[in-house]
Amino acid sequence: MNNNLIITGARIITPIGRKARKGKEMDQLFDENGTIEITDGKITYVGPDRPVLPEGYKLIHAEGKVVLPGFVDSHTHLVFGGFRPDEFIWRINGDTYMSILQRGGGILSTVKSTRKESFGALQKKTEGFIDIMSQMGVTTVEGKSGYGLDRDTELKQLEVMQAINLDKNRKVDIATTFLGAHATPVEYKGREDEYIDFLISEMLPLIKERMLAENCDIFCEDGVFTVAQSRKLLQAAKEMGFGVKIHADEIVSFGGAELAGELKALSADHLLHASDAGIEAMAANNVVATLLPLTAFTLREPYARGREMIDKGCAVALATDLNPGSCCSGSIPLTFALACIYMHLTVNEAITAMTLNGAAAIDRADTIGSIEIGKYGDLVILDSDTPNVLPYYTGMNSVEKTIKRGRVVYER
Amino acid sequence: MNNNLIITGARIITPIGRKARKGKEMDQLFDENGTIEITDGKITYVGPDRPVLPEGYKLIHAEGKVVLPGFVDSHTHLVFGGFRPDEFIWRINGDTYMSILQRGGGILSTVKSTRKESFGALQKKTEGFIDIMSQMGVTTVEGKSGYGLDRDTELKQLEVMQAINLDKNRKVDIATTFLGAHATPVEYKGREDEYIDFLISEMLPLIKERMLAENCDIFCEDGVFTVAQSRKLLQAAKEMGFGVKIHADEIVSFGGAELAGELKALSADHLLHASDAGIEAMAANNVVATLLPLTAFTLREPYARGREMIDKGCAVALATDLNPGSCCSGSIPLTFALACIYMHLTVNEAITAMTLNGAAAIDRADTIGSIEIGKYGDLVILDSDTPNVLPYYTGMNSVEKTIKRGRVVYER
Repeated sequence: MNNNLIITGARIITPIGRKARKGKEMDQLFDENGTIEITDGKITYVGPDRPVLPEGYKLIHAEGKVVLPGFVDSHTHLVFGGFRPDEFIWRINGDTYMSILQRGGGILSTVKSTRKESFGALQKKTEGFIDIMSQMGVTTVEGKSGYGLDRDTELKQLEVMQAINLDKNRKVDIATTFLGAHATPVEYKGREDEYIDFLISEMLPLIKERMLAENCDIFCEDGVFTVAQSRKLLQAAKEMGFGVKIHADEIVSFGGAELAGELKALSADHLLHASDAGIEAMAANNVVATLLPLTAFTLREPYARGREMIDKGCAVALATDLNPGSCCSGSIPLTFALACIYMHLTVNEAITAMTLNGAAAIDRADTIGSIEIGKYGDLVILDSDTPNVLPYYTGMNSVEKTIKRGRVVYER
Repeated sequence: MNNNLIITGARIITPIGRKARKGKEMDQLFDENGTIEITDGKITYVGPDRPVLPEGYKLIHAEGKVVLPGFVDSHTHLVFGGFRPDEFIWRINGDTYMSILQRGGGILSTVKSTRKESFGALQKKTEGFIDIMSQMGVTTVEGKSGYGLDRDTELKQLEVMQAINLDKNRKVDIATTFLGAHATPVEYKGREDEYIDFLISEMLPLIKERMLAENCDIFCEDGVFTVAQSRKLLQAAKEMGFGVKIHADEIVSFGGAELAGELKALSADHLLHASDAGIEAMAANNVVATLLPLTAFTLREPYARGREMIDKGCAVALATDLNPGSCCSGSIPLTFALACIYMHLTVNEAITAMTLNGAAAIDRADTIGSIEIGKYGDLVILDSDTPNVLPYYTGMNSVEKTIKRGRVVYER
């Protein structure tokens, strides 16, 4: 397939840079009309429309259309067996996350299904999600393991993502994260420290050797893994060369954001209950504060303090948290609506959060997340001349075309 | 096109009846596995799977799938010129609806665009919305005029809907509502009573004669039209044979729900600030309480008291309110999510609200809104064996196929 593409007459809107944009920088976007040229999958020209165009390029006239960098959904759990719709209904009727977890539901129920599911079935299901993501403008998604909690199933989840990444015509790249420390498996109940040691001594070296994950994550939360256990795992991971990420302060204020600062993690995620000290630690140490408003929405929790985090100098990213439990949604449109209407981000800030800062949260800000020469030609064309439609078409898709490395992979 | 269809092995879930279901009835659904047969566009069999099937029918095997009545979106403003994304941003930054209206924005800005727009352009835009609605399972939509506020443009809006209804292969039926009393046009500023008289003496007879609208609606609200003006218009409309509907108690508690009860209106809509007396009046007089949670969501208003209305014996319907101002969204998935997660309706109640009660709100409960012999074969097939996915796939489409009078009009 031809990866040469020229888009003319577009309203090009993009953050600029090769690292996350912090605080006030998030609102400052490049916004000019012109041409984008993609050669062999990479951007080779961004600037004013030219009188003569080179040959051998597919051509898109984008007059009256906004072009953005492809969206980066930097926090999902997209490889899993089964679904849990009934449990979702219990929860909206009042059951708590922790009470469902403690009686063997929640994550552990998906662990059972994922262990049983065949590789092929998991791959097919994951590809189904990816198709839908691509229609909403996602060109890179982060995917976590964490529904195996044993050697073989954790590897199986990561291998499913690897198999999808090997497809030359893939619509979405998957950035892989090892989340063996998502919960303690029943086999290790009450022996959390031993489980962490197993992950450090057996799993991480194996995953490193097979190049199955780029990053390592842990669910640091009261009743799941302590700050000390999180520090131990993530430090070990960092020493082996993994990027590190933390599920932090989702249910209670627990010191996760502070730990992310201490470890200079790529990101701390959720942060509904991040403390002031945690916010300062993230801002000071260039940790991307990754906010997942869909999950707060489904759980009827207060949204993370996104506005305040930006005002205090953090780099904020937005992601969907797609998972079979608390948030079986990958809705990019609803994420934009929640960010702008309920978290008081500007549209520009939300765009930065869903592109360059998402890329930084998975350590790819040098190759994706903005429309700049040398980066991959991953783009979204909106069906409007203004990015304000992102929250205005509330919960509705405003993407007309998705472009992956110069190929049109979705067209309305 | 063939309108004969048989669906076998389905989990058939539907309210039962030819009028709105009230109070506790809303939760009581028919829920059995079996076959649905549609002959010539109408349902001719609902019951257990049969060993031998008649010939001349398209066949769908729906094992492991839920089949519901097609969704009825009973309150939209889907014919309009222009879009207002920038104004939407002002509003989420704090401007009020009334302040935007009073300085010539809001409805009046869309009135200008709609007056200018050609018939063909309006029809094309409306058909675009209808395509997207159909993908989300809508088989009947109510459409209002009200962006003309003059003779010719009001007629133009209604004629656009009529033209779409004349297409034999249409995906969605449009139930037409005359909303000339959406706002006072600049030409009548300060002469609201005269404008109401104009609507009664000139517009209603014309629309009746040309059979351009089935129902008549008014925006009864502080600063728009008074209760007395609303009573006068709707009584006149009723005497001419129109069904009547009211935009009631959206911004302040204003007596709209009470008036709807007094007039035995088909529906009172919005109702964010409906009083206890208003709720009782609706329940006592079989007025469908039509709730529009997407609009409350975008306006950051408290949701209407849907749970309480059902508990007090009302028939509740859910609709999207698609319009270019406060709610440029026709998201059926998000409507289900808001109803179940935030308004505390059960999934069964939300289904009744989006099917049979929506049909009753546009006076069509005798022909659509449930899966029963004699009704039109308007159906939705979900990609799951449980209706709980409606809120669980939060904001994401769970519709696999939409069927309009026996024809598959959308297939994922």
